Amino acid sequence: MSLKTVICVLWAVCVGHTEGIQHGPNIIIMLMDDMGWGDLGVFGEPSKETPNLDVMAAQGMLFPNFYTANPLCSPSRAALLTGRLPVRNGFYTTNAHARNAYTPQEIVGGISQDEILLPELLKKKDYVSKIIGKWHLGHRSQYLPLKHGFDEWFGSPNCHFGPYNNSVRPNIPVYNNSEMTGRYYEEFEINVKTGESNLTQIYLKEGLDFISQQATAQRPFFLYWAPDATHSPVYASERFLGKSQRGRYGDAVMELDDSIGQILAHLVSLGIHNNTLVFFTSDNGAAVMSGAHQSGSNGPFLCGKETTFEGGMREPAIAWWPGRIPAGTVSYQLASVMDLFSTSLSVTGVLPPDDRVIDGLDLSPVLFNNSLLDRPIFYYRGNQMMAVRIGQYKVHYWTWSNSWEEYNTGINFCPGQEVPGVTTHTQEEHTMQPLIFHLGQDPGERYPIRSEVMCLSVLGNGVKTVGPG
Amino acid sequence: MSLKTVICVLWAVCVGHTEGIQHGPNIIIMLMDDMGWGDLGVFGEPSKETPNLDVMAAQGMLFPNFYTANPLCSPSRAALLTGRLPVRNGFYTTNAHARNAYTPQEIVGGISQDEILLPELLKKKDYVSKIIGKWHLGHRSQYLPLKHGFDEWFGSPNCHFGPYNNSVRPNIPVYNNSEMTGRYYEEFEINVKTGESNLTQIYLKEGLDFISQQATAQRPFFLYWAPDATHSPVYASERFLGKSQRGRYGDAVMELDDSIGQILAHLVSLGIHNNTLVFFTSDNGAAVMSGAHQSGSNGPFLCGKETTFEGGMREPAIAWWPGRIPAGTVSYQLASVMDLFSTSLSVTGVLPPDDRVIDGLDLSPVLFNNSLLDRPIFYYRGNQMMAVRIGQYKVHYWTWSNSWEEYNTGINFCPGQEVPGVTTHTQEEHTMQPLIFHLGQDPGERYPIRSEVMCLSVLGNGVKTVGPG
Repeated sequence: MSLKTVICVLWAVCVGHTEGIQHGPNIIIMLMDDMGWGDLGVFGEPSKETPNLDVMAAQGMLFPNFYTANPLCSPSRAALLTGRLPVRNGFYTTNAHARNAYTPQEIVGGISQDEILLPELLKKKDYVSKIIGKWHLGHRSQYLPLKHGFDEWFGSPNCHFGPYNNSVRPNIPVYNNSEMTGRYYEEFEINVKTGESNLTQIYLKEGLDFISQQATAQRPFFLYWAPDATHSPVYASERFLGKSQRGRYGDAVMELDDSIGQILAHLVSLGIHNNTLVFFTSDNGAAVMSGAHQSGSNGPFLCGKETTFEGGMREPAIAWWPGRIPAGTVSYQLASVMDLFSTSLSVTGVLPPDDRVIDGLDLSPVLFNNSLLDRPIFYYRGNQMMAVRIGQYKVHYWTWSNSWEEYNTGINFCPGQEVPGVTTHTQEEHTMQPLIFHLGQDPGERYPIRSEVMCLSVLGNGVKTVGPG
Repeated sequence: MSLKTVICVLWAVCVGHTEGIQHGPNIIIMLMDDMGWGDLGVFGEPSKETPNLDVMAAQGMLFPNFYTANPLCSPSRAALLTGRLPVRNGFYTTNAHARNAYTPQEIVGGISQDEILLPELLKKKDYVSKIIGKWHLGHRSQYLPLKHGFDEWFGSPNCHFGPYNNSVRPNIPVYNNSEMTGRYYEEFEINVKTGESNLTQIYLKEGLDFISQQATAQRPFFLYWAPDATHSPVYASERFLGKSQRGRYGDAVMELDDSIGQILAHLVSLGIHNNTLVFFTSDNGAAVMSGAHQSGSNGPFLCGKETTFEGGMREPAIAWWPGRIPAGTVSYQLASVMDLFSTSLSVTGVLPPDDRVIDGLDLSPVLFNNSLLDRPIFYYRGNQMMAVRIGQYKVHYWTWSNSWEEYNTGINFCPGQEVPGVTTHTQEEHTMQPLIFHLGQDPGERYPIRSEVMCLSVLGNGVKTVGPG
């Protein structure tokens, strides 16, 4: 043992376990499933079911203007892990204009071998990566997480749809790394009638154990924690069932919130909280078409999942890194799940791929200096760019909620909401004269700004007084 | 000077200025004008304009289920000060079924001489009472605040409507105690074009001075702080104009929030915060019919001001009393502005009148022990009881947004919202088979529970799974 090593060890013992860690920060991305912006107490859910997330926000940075890259699970998750829009990473459809890509469920495709995922890149700095929960980027063996950079996996390639009880359509499998360890509704019980399931507890334990193991081994880690309790059919464990004023959906939220509190507390108890960036968000807006019992809240926003209105794509988001991110701050940065890719690379000192377009933005200046960076938000359905946000302005080139055919069967993507000419049931093109909203003044997209007023106002004294009176 | 007095004075000096105060707690009621539930950061406004109110909530008790007694200014304010429903205190109409009582503006009436107002009762314990801002309980001399228990007044009998510039309809007067000291748009400028006015600053200074004077004199006080900057035409002072992402309405919110922060800080600096109950709320829901520039947000709730949907009557509410009310608590108590009357009497040790019905509830057990008390909420328009809430269930006996005649002129009480059979433009009676909502699961009143399901469910295993799937 050299003198230098002895000094290092002694110093580490003196200043405490974690201070001696030489590796880059750990990364934890907590991705909820179909949870809406308005489901958090800090974003106004009246039942206030998320005390732990509210504390996380008070200790970290809250993002009211955070977006997914697509209002549907698979493309959103593919965008997060590749830092690229679905039209680049392949998770889109062309066969039905403005339909969302549901690729890995409907067909046998999945994430392309040519895409480079975040855990693959983090390997360059010896990160151990684990995904816990839903993958959703393809269920055939070549598409599974361990083939795309993850070292460990506990979870499923798909949602917990079911139960299916015929040999043609087996229940969705649950994997432990590369081995199937059971199936939903069989070894991993979900009681659709009572809503009871221990899955969130299992995912929590998997998360805590993984963190403990890496802390003990002093290895840097990336944990992608993606539980799916708030996706229909929603579930919670016995301890949480009946606890929320909202019913079963709220019970699921309360259990996830409790789990998040436990994970953060675990980081603190291990002394690695000052070396761990935790980011909480959701994959798309609340699935309001599923009704009051099986879906959450998009707060003041229009419509929900599968649409390119704010309710479909604006997500709850909190960044937490004690000692690095100033506590109790609100960032108005327009940000995206794709930024989690670029930011994770930045804080760990890994260069992004230089052979392709990366749509993610490095949010480090936002997180550490509360800077505001110029950047647009693109709203896609399938391969159709429906809308763009720049600053407070959102421009719809196309509007569409869902088809009359679907709507007439009782499926409503905007229940209780109707904005004439905006929540259209036919695909309406506005490319020659786009619909414009000021999302600061009108977050609910209720008052399109008339173009002539807009022009006059931009020519005049700015845009402050644009809109109806 | 007796020995006892000397000892008392010495003791007061030793333990600090305020510890020697023998009088009951001061009461401050901060009543906003047309501010919506969703306008506070802590209730989900995306622009997060209310850091001081959010801190007030973190230091006090937040009420997500707090209601006004009527979705309109005058009857709401009369209910607050009398502890009685408008149908009891006279602020209702019978001449047009389900119209709201706008009495003090449209006719020459006002608060009845027979009503006993909170400041009259507090006089029994030598409280000094001041109203700052809008009165709205009658503009003829016999109805003004100093005739109804207030010792001081700075403000106006009415809203800051105008400007009027003809002798038939003069501008609304502003009073300093019993003397008119000027008029809106004349001595008290409001620039409708730019939105600039110093009125909130004037009301703030009046409030701080009054508090200082009573603290110095060691007199218990009741301050009813009722600024009207968020009532159309909304205004803010130069320092706040253009500061909010929401435009002028948000600027007004930011200035009010800043003022509230200053008032709370002033209580702390005077050392009387541990002896002062501060309650923040609003008089009715956001006036969403006024459009995006002149109105606020009712968050996830249906419709707004003038309606008996949640957006019309659910109010932002925070109670603050350091050392007495546990910090950072959320109370799900169903509560009402009328409870501020009963609670103020309770904490000051004054008995309520025993010759009349008082509708207010003493919230002391809620504030100090976080108890939950059984109580219904009644939703009135004029003399018509439109709906009742008991627990999580709300029952609509009548539905009505506004008339087709009014709606067809472009006035919409539910912009962007439409729930078939609920947001009706004709007065729809449901007394034989009321519309039922579960507000925990469905705060937005989008999914009426079918009666037959309700009955079956109540007869069966409880009501957890009631409603559409």
